[in-house]
Amino acid sequence: MKGYVHIYTGDGKGKTTAAIGLAIRAAGAGFKVFFGQFLKSGHYSEHEALKRFSDMIEIRQYGRGCFIKNKPQKEDVEAARRGLSEVKDIINSGKYNLVILDEANIAVYYGLIEVDQLIEILRQRPSHVEVVITGRNADPKLIEEADLVTEMREIKHYYRKGVLARIGIER
Amino acid sequence: MKGYVHIYTGDGKGKTTAAIGLAIRAAGAGFKVFFGQFLKSGHYSEHEALKRFSDMIEIRQYGRGCFIKNKPQKEDVEAARRGLSEVKDIINSGKYNLVILDEANIAVYYGLIEVDQLIEILRQRPSHVEVVITGRNADPKLIEEADLVTEMREIKHYYRKGVLARIGIER
Repeated sequence: MKGYVHIYTGDGKGKTTAAIGLAIRAAGAGFKVFFGQFLKSGHYSEHEALKRFSDMIEIRQYGRGCFIKNKPQKEDVEAARRGLSEVKDIINSGKYNLVILDEANIAVYYGLIEVDQLIEILRQRPSHVEVVITGRNADPKLIEEADLVTEMREIKHYYRKGVLARIGIER
Repeated sequence: MKGYVHIYTGDGKGKTTAAIGLAIRAAGAGFKVFFGQFLKSGHYSEHEALKRFSDMIEIRQYGRGCFIKNKPQKEDVEAARRGLSEVKDIINSGKYNLVILDEANIAVYYGLIEVDQLIEILRQRPSHVEVVITGRNADPKLIEEADLVTEMREIKHYYRKGVLARIGIER
């Protein structure tokens, strides 16, 4: 089965969440999944749940948490580049049918990784490997490269009412 | 914790997928989840995967499969109304922190269930119950009622290239 490149972008909710759903669906079909998270660090509720799929879904993080409040530091760049290099090997190995690069759009947007390098990795991948890239501000070059692009558009959001991210729902 | 009403709508990919992701995340946080599917019938890859969460996530279907090619029949209406009645009890029981009404937007859109009845159920729910409604063509009244609305907008889709729904990715 040929693998495609999906992008989930936009300012709305549901990008990482959809990627988790896709990972679960793929695991349900017997596919091996790699879930790489750029920028993120630490424990989210989904990690707890995905433990039940440790035979099918492998998770790794390439970040130090959220730098968005500040500017990315040298350590953020290093973590992201290490991530991209690792992800390249993982994709090339062909062992995973589905490879998710969570928040990779943000890593590109903030200059932590090069969009051209990422595109090169996509182009050289084994043809059966499906890749999902999430995060706001997807690079136009990456959109051009992808087979499927969905924009999660915020129509209404309770953050506007002052509700903060809640465990089990947003994280 | 107060529960909110989310809607995932739009013509893009990722609505049900995001709901699955949300179910997994909630289960990871120790929340009980009810996953009701309107219109749908039969086995999808996600059901296979969600079996591992049978202690946390309960799934039920209120449909006969896809009627969209034809017109909804009496049996479709009956199945959906039975579903809405069951969902009402489930929400009111307060036993589930998260209740997902997958494709309920479509059930409203095709007149299988009444939007006013659904809104009434939402308004009378125990305050801790979070409800997620998915499907294209969300009713404006429902959007008005919701706390959070995300539109999955199709920017690029490989269906246009003739790729059909694939097991483990779309279903």
